[in-house]
Amino acid sequence: MTRLLDRIDSPLDLKRLKPADLPRLCQEIRDEIIATCARNGGHLGASLGAVELNVALHYVLNSPVDSIVFDVGHQAYAHKLLTGRREAFQTIRTEGGLAGFPERHESPHDAFGVGHASTAISAGLGILEARRMNGQAGKVVALVGDGALTGGVAFEGLNQAGYLGRDLLVVLNDNEMSISPNVGALSEWFSKKFASRTFNRWRRTVKDVLTVVPKGPEAIKVIRHAINATKALVTPGILFEGLGFQYVGPVDGHDVVGLVETFKKLLTCDGPVLVHAVTMKGKGYRPAESDAATRGHGLSFFDIATGKSVAKKPAVKAYTDLFAEALCEQMEQDKRVVAITAAMLEGTGLIKAKHRFPERTYDVGIAEQHAVTFAAGLACEGVRPVVAIYSTFLQRAYDQIIHDVALQKLPVTFALDRGGLVGADGKTHQGAFDLAYLRCVPNLVVMAPSDENELRHMLATALAHDGPAAFRFPRGSGVGVQLDPAPKVLPLGKGRVVRQGGARPDVLVASIGTPLAAALTAADELEAEGISVAVVDARFVKPLDEELLCGLARTAKRVVTLEEGCLEGGFGAACLEAFERAKLLPGLQVTRLGLPDEFVTHGDAGKQRAAYGLDAQGVARACRALLGDRAKRTVA
Amino acid sequence: MTRLLDRIDSPLDLKRLKPADLPRLCQEIRDEIIATCARNGGHLGASLGAVELNVALHYVLNSPVDSIVFDVGHQAYAHKLLTGRREAFQTIRTEGGLAGFPERHESPHDAFGVGHASTAISAGLGILEARRMNGQAGKVVALVGDGALTGGVAFEGLNQAGYLGRDLLVVLNDNEMSISPNVGALSEWFSKKFASRTFNRWRRTVKDVLTVVPKGPEAIKVIRHAINATKALVTPGILFEGLGFQYVGPVDGHDVVGLVETFKKLLTCDGPVLVHAVTMKGKGYRPAESDAATRGHGLSFFDIATGKSVAKKPAVKAYTDLFAEALCEQMEQDKRVVAITAAMLEGTGLIKAKHRFPERTYDVGIAEQHAVTFAAGLACEGVRPVVAIYSTFLQRAYDQIIHDVALQKLPVTFALDRGGLVGADGKTHQGAFDLAYLRCVPNLVVMAPSDENELRHMLATALAHDGPAAFRFPRGSGVGVQLDPAPKVLPLGKGRVVRQGGARPDVLVASIGTPLAAALTAADELEAEGISVAVVDARFVKPLDEELLCGLARTAKRVVTLEEGCLEGGFGAACLEAFERAKLLPGLQVTRLGLPDEFVTHGDAGKQRAAYGLDAQGVARACRALLGDRAKRTVA
Repeated sequence: MTRLLDRIDSPLDLKRLKPADLPRLCQEIRDEIIATCARNGGHLGASLGAVELNVALHYVLNSPVDSIVFDVGHQAYAHKLLTGRREAFQTIRTEGGLAGFPERHESPHDAFGVGHASTAISAGLGILEARRMNGQAGKVVALVGDGALTGGVAFEGLNQAGYLGRDLLVVLNDNEMSISPNVGALSEWFSKKFASRTFNRWRRTVKDVLTVVPKGPEAIKVIRHAINATKALVTPGILFEGLGFQYVGPVDGHDVVGLVETFKKLLTCDGPVLVHAVTMKGKGYRPAESDAATRGHGLSFFDIATGKSVAKKPAVKAYTDLFAEALCEQMEQDKRVVAITAAMLEGTGLIKAKHRFPERTYDVGIAEQHAVTFAAGLACEGVRPVVAIYSTFLQRAYDQIIHDVALQKLPVTFALDRGGLVGADGKTHQGAFDLAYLRCVPNLVVMAPSDENELRHMLATALAHDGPAAFRFPRGSGVGVQLDPAPKVLPLGKGRVVRQGGARPDVLVASIGTPLAAALTAADELEAEGISVAVVDARFVKPLDEELLCGLARTAKRVVTLEEGCLEGGFGAACLEAFERAKLLPGLQVTRLGLPDEFVTHGDAGKQRAAYGLDAQGVARACRALLGDRAKRTVA
Repeated sequence: MTRLLDRIDSPLDLKRLKPADLPRLCQEIRDEIIATCARNGGHLGASLGAVELNVALHYVLNSPVDSIVFDVGHQAYAHKLLTGRREAFQTIRTEGGLAGFPERHESPHDAFGVGHASTAISAGLGILEARRMNGQAGKVVALVGDGALTGGVAFEGLNQAGYLGRDLLVVLNDNEMSISPNVGALSEWFSKKFASRTFNRWRRTVKDVLTVVPKGPEAIKVIRHAINATKALVTPGILFEGLGFQYVGPVDGHDVVGLVETFKKLLTCDGPVLVHAVTMKGKGYRPAESDAATRGHGLSFFDIATGKSVAKKPAVKAYTDLFAEALCEQMEQDKRVVAITAAMLEGTGLIKAKHRFPERTYDVGIAEQHAVTFAAGLACEGVRPVVAIYSTFLQRAYDQIIHDVALQKLPVTFALDRGGLVGADGKTHQGAFDLAYLRCVPNLVVMAPSDENELRHMLATALAHDGPAAFRFPRGSGVGVQLDPAPKVLPLGKGRVVRQGGARPDVLVASIGTPLAAALTAADELEAEGISVAVVDARFVKPLDEELLCGLARTAKRVVTLEEGCLEGGFGAACLEAFERAKLLPGLQVTRLGLPDEFVTHGDAGKQRAAYGLDAQGVARACRALLGDRAKRTVA
């Protein structure tokens, strides 16, 4: 029996199916998603939870004339399968293959690119408003998870959408989770605690009324009706009604036939409508359904039968785990230390802290801005908050870092995971800009560890510093160094010479963070060629150890800087600035290695490093080029 | 008769007054604020509107054991007067004087520094939570304007505050304005439109019920009671109740005695409480009250009797006005161009566009993130949005610039007013970081005009470019150049030689933006000393005109870079990077002039420029220093 899915090359083909066929199609899509994620890894849980929503929307809409704007984009796998990318789907998240998120250049059906949360309402409203201006047809649906709704920009978008009153349809995919289970008053509202609380208060009022009016069967009947009528007012709907939206729901987000009917009706409504669909993350795949903690949020390769990971177990512990352990160690020793995450207890490793120190571990939901300003408030009173946010997501709290933390010199520690290349998650998730955007902020200490020990030391250093400090570390496994017995506080703004390279080294390699290993390998190689190389681990991007770097640069005359971050304004630029201030530039040859001025796409991070010259070969090549003819002679 | 105010050196002195004396004190505070603002300029309207709130809060609280956390901080003048800064108040916003906003280092009563909007709930919650951890006493009140509440981070803060359930008191100062009159669905809610709409719907339901149940006097009586009970549910309060807050109000925000009673009661409540106080911006000063557009938001020197500005009328038009006119010109010619502001119709000059093109001018409220993502959505469909936001406030939308606009190469234009030094507004408002934080973003064109013509050209250039572009211009008057007949599209990434400096100039001054004038004056001066200077207006920070700059640098061997922005990662750093790529560094002497690595405080921008070497003397000095002995010889 051939699959229905195999007949669908575009949403037009989907529309030829009978509604009764849709459940079978949904099952086929689920099977395809599970099989592909098992091979490629990916955001399984969210995608499985939104299969029916995707199918029903494409069944009633006419994409790309109509647009579905995804929020975060984890939910878009079914959408990709239905919009001409069925064959290509098996390449998702791999080099040269489909992106893991919607991307405008990938398909006309991807109305808006995404990867970060809470943008869909604002973007969808913009698209709709532009079509109104242009006199174009085309409906717009924003598909938003309940987790994404806690992000402030989503609220800002609702506020204007309700005000403008355009025909925006917001589909709230409520699976009671963001990545971790949801937190915040809003989630309590959804879970009806609010409703029952408010409702009970009202019921008490009515009871009081009953004591003062004559009783009788009519009165009681009226009261019962009135109570039922009021009930409708105190559902989650009132929030959205208050913001000018018509609220519909909750509806069953896995009843694809019912969804088709609902969407058909709602798309004829005037003005903004929000339909509240209740779904289950990981729906239809038992191992994901039963993993309450993340419901299969982001998985690497797994065995389909068991759902268990079959990814090669790395021999060496990941930086994330090491960070989490180091943090727990600090929280154990110092009661002032608290941990803050924005809906990423698992991703940042803070789940460990949550288990050991539940009272001192805060998950604020997808709300990076609040996370940082909340931390600033805590720091005012002597608490030592550690804010653990991925490099790319900390961009969402840039003004809070500047205005609330750095300006006031408050001792907040920022732990940026996923600094540098991230591999399969691609453009929206690369940690490329952190060193540049943090380095220009006054009062802020900026570090990057070159190995596991350094990470532990930098956490200790940040916590010992009476002011704001950030350190960033990469995705993936550490180097595997032997851990020191205890973390130590590093001298502020001091780098370390890892390799002296003799009394008069030919080249200085100034490295920040984990590329240090490549520098050392390159130095070995070059030494064999008769080229002496001094290698410095700068440790601090800010304050930069100008004394050390300028001293060695003065001797070597040739400098290669090395960072897994953007070249514009990054660590290498900081070195150039230091050389300028020290009036060293005349007579100095410098080559900066780092990430190029582009959004690096998904692919193999190792290959990308090689392509950008950030591996040992690249460093060696850069050193040889600085030596020019001399290097050629030596090698010959 | 001596003033009550003169007896108040701390909140303790305030507490000695009888409640009946408070209205008189409020009047004295008003007089003092009006007199001082007339001399120094300042945020008159917001401060006048919050006099009673400040007095009542300090009367019932015990600052600094208890804390008032201000939002934006425009409302804090009365607070400053009551907390030991009565004498110093006359120096507010002047060099060496009090800051215009709360600053932690200025007084222990300034619990949290501020200047940007929407932070108080998050910060206040952090302070409160830290005190709970520390076992300290001390209540926390967050004083938030209704305008600031539209900022997403305020919603994020409410969401966690309601969830945690701590005893946070939020005082909502509802003057129905942010800076401009408020917009958005939330403001409609406050204005009761929502309430009556929802309530009417419920009333209809009850009427339907009435038709099916037997009528009688008891039934009608019950219904009436039920309706009244329900009414309480559909006030603005329901939003906050839904988020876990107890809602109280609306109360009269100018009845100081009533406020004292209300606050006393509320500060004994358990759990988060929001009290909704209705006030009038500019209250008690007729000229401000009657200026409906801004109610005296931010004023320069004015005549007390009339409220009319007596500031020296600048001979030359301000950049803001010129930008607004240039924008209207573009909107006139091209129907695709729309304008977007975040609650700053007046500050950005967009009020002109709003009057001429009301359908194409969007004020989204204090919601910079949404402003940018909404623009991205518009740009997807061929609309050409111009997002006009102050340099410092655009920090609040950094991720949206990266993730929603630049990554997708969407043609959104960012017009950054207040780039560079801002004078009296001080630390939180300096436009110091924009060139650095924008320059590292791929795909983004970054410009800065050196005069009025250039500003017009850059707007035209940005709009003609099929991708994202930003330009930043300073606060204050332009140069006064004769305007070209029409704006022209500049060649992308090309600078211009403004002064050749002969065939072999001794120094190249590479300037970006308005410091160009200083460079030209310096060049004249140096020429008189026999030093030839080439001056380049780079126009583009990104893409940088590497060919032009490297060509001239190769000849001159000495380069001074000039920018009114932070030196870390800014324009000068971009020049160094270009010289590195071109392998020009050996043999090159470079000095970068720009803003120092600190938060520049309030003061006279001209003096600050001189102190940082950004005036003609400073540029000349830097050039001479590069020439060393030769310059000395020449001058001698």
